[in-house]
Amino acid sequence: MRNFTYSIPTTIYFGKDKLEEIIPEVKRYGKRVLITYGGGSIKRIGLYDKLTALFKQNDIFYVELGGIQPNPRVSSVREGIALCREHKVDFILAVGGGSVIDASKAIAAGVTYDGDVWDFMIGKATVKDPLPLGSVLTLAATGSEMNGSAVISNEETQDKRPMGDPALRPVFSVLDPVYTYSVNKWHTAAGTTDIMSHIFEAYYTVDKDVEVADYMAEALLKVCIKYGPIAVEEPENYEARANLMWAGTLAINGLISYGKAGGDWATHMIEHEVSAIYDLTHGAGLAILFPVWMEYVLDERNSWRFAQMARNVWGVSEIDDMKAARLGIAEIRKFFSSLGMPATLKDVNIDGQHIPVMAKKATIFGALGNIKKLQQADVEEILRRAL
Amino acid sequence: MRNFTYSIPTTIYFGKDKLEEIIPEVKRYGKRVLITYGGGSIKRIGLYDKLTALFKQNDIFYVELGGIQPNPRVSSVREGIALCREHKVDFILAVGGGSVIDASKAIAAGVTYDGDVWDFMIGKATVKDPLPLGSVLTLAATGSEMNGSAVISNEETQDKRPMGDPALRPVFSVLDPVYTYSVNKWHTAAGTTDIMSHIFEAYYTVDKDVEVADYMAEALLKVCIKYGPIAVEEPENYEARANLMWAGTLAINGLISYGKAGGDWATHMIEHEVSAIYDLTHGAGLAILFPVWMEYVLDERNSWRFAQMARNVWGVSEIDDMKAARLGIAEIRKFFSSLGMPATLKDVNIDGQHIPVMAKKATIFGALGNIKKLQQADVEEILRRAL
Repeated sequence: MRNFTYSIPTTIYFGKDKLEEIIPEVKRYGKRVLITYGGGSIKRIGLYDKLTALFKQNDIFYVELGGIQPNPRVSSVREGIALCREHKVDFILAVGGGSVIDASKAIAAGVTYDGDVWDFMIGKATVKDPLPLGSVLTLAATGSEMNGSAVISNEETQDKRPMGDPALRPVFSVLDPVYTYSVNKWHTAAGTTDIMSHIFEAYYTVDKDVEVADYMAEALLKVCIKYGPIAVEEPENYEARANLMWAGTLAINGLISYGKAGGDWATHMIEHEVSAIYDLTHGAGLAILFPVWMEYVLDERNSWRFAQMARNVWGVSEIDDMKAARLGIAEIRKFFSSLGMPATLKDVNIDGQHIPVMAKKATIFGALGNIKKLQQADVEEILRRAL
Repeated sequence: MRNFTYSIPTTIYFGKDKLEEIIPEVKRYGKRVLITYGGGSIKRIGLYDKLTALFKQNDIFYVELGGIQPNPRVSSVREGIALCREHKVDFILAVGGGSVIDASKAIAAGVTYDGDVWDFMIGKATVKDPLPLGSVLTLAATGSEMNGSAVISNEETQDKRPMGDPALRPVFSVLDPVYTYSVNKWHTAAGTTDIMSHIFEAYYTVDKDVEVADYMAEALLKVCIKYGPIAVEEPENYEARANLMWAGTLAINGLISYGKAGGDWATHMIEHEVSAIYDLTHGAGLAILFPVWMEYVLDERNSWRFAQMARNVWGVSEIDDMKAARLGIAEIRKFFSSLGMPATLKDVNIDGQHIPVMAKKATIFGALGNIKKLQQADVEEILRRAL
């Protein structure tokens, strides 16, 4: 087990009717709030009205930035930064899914930075004294509600890049599973896939003797396998929504990575290039790419780890590690299909024409991955096999 | 899943050579420190010298309270409170196992309270503005390093009582598995049993549909089952010590209880009465009592939960829940015996003479437990069956 420093200070208010908890929290950190949200689903489910009523009752000043899109654009972020400066905002409340929270993190970092916010995405700037932020989560998927990471897209350059800093971790997040009832089948399935993908990224490293992290990762996967299909079929099943939501948060708050290298993340980086060009749902891209990536990186040195997951999670009883690993990957592919996720790039009308440029951009900062280092040619081959 | 508020702000410095991390942490919270420790093992392993050298190099004032015993005495606590007041201490650093950390929590609470510290144990006082404390852990067992609970013994009244408050959570803890190399076979086995018992307490509640908590609890149990025997046989096996240490912390920091009722804790309360009179090693008492308690409370309504653990953790494949539950309990008893733990009270030279008084004291504040409420007569019966 590697050395680590555990620090997960975010407070989570989990469950039904927890919205009022935000008032003392917001007051603790600020007086002037930017409320961020997406395409308006928070208005349809009544959350917007409840929230703004609470703010008014408590005399808390707020301005709004709505319309933040999936794969959030840096243009939205810039708009948010301008709003914060204009209205002297000192706290950001993100209300939505990962895209809204990610955009809010970039806004929080950008407000206190003199240059352009895209500098954070290209390594030209580091986060310093960002505005504090909180979140009210409406989609179980990215885990952004309890970590310091964000992924932002640049529509001009067709880039999609991560940024991150512990100081961008929300100081609190409200997780009410009821807010996810209105998430449709497709996004519920994609969200489940996203959660499972985060677990895969944390799991597939070169580390041995890290059973605390490994077994907890397997536990969270089993939750997704049990409750993902139920949530897709029964959108108002509270227990399914609750277990998925909590698993999604724990999957990427650091817990299952402590004691290990920081995860593989090659598949995410490759998917970012695909969805930067094609604006594909992130989870759908991951469902296509992960089994292909697994088959590509599997070898004699790491087969024990693929076999461990196959046996502990997917019910594989095969004794030979390499065979067990392959059976496990087949189960993963089968499961994603059962959720209604696509299996190939062709399934989502993506052909091979941009593969060279995607592979080049994915590796622009160097080789990808932990369990196996991937160069540009490797990424190109993975994308071809995914066609 | 029940509503909950997640808050685990303790920072954990985990791994080799992490001791220096304490200096900026201590300086953040105080200027005058009480260092607490036990019977001197920290001197034998060189930790005391390293620590006091660090304090001197950094010009941090400290006083010491050594000699804190297992099942820590309220007399030690009172002594610590007097020392803190005399030297205007503003931070406590506990260096040792759970007993030292527990005593330190009681000292931290007692310093800022006008009455006698035992008041906290009898519900006569609540914790208010305690001194901040940190810990350097030398035994994987109680999990006190990341929670706000303590158990203190009163040698005059032969009482052993818990107290707790979120404000008593250490602000940081240093977990270096190497510091546990010198823990002997008996205490390593008892510590493993203690960790597993905390998981049992969290696991055996009436809640359904709480798979995130359940599966993570099972993950931590599997870590104990894998690494407990290795640590007993190979005291300097770093990976075994590291996995046990981290599992022990996560077992009782709240993580595996979120979304559930607060745990059962009947067995712990019964064991406290036994060790209050006989000064038995806590883990050994739990090894004796847990299987008996399980058999006593098992019934048709809760057999699914016992069966779930039997299948997911103990390799039981039996389909019938009640049969699977009994097979699981048999495996637990077998495992504790394999660790060298006693199986009956007679094994540790305890006869039945004090059973009535122990049962009476255990239920003095009311019935015990969550999965089944236990009255005085139930406790008496469990103790008799444990003979």
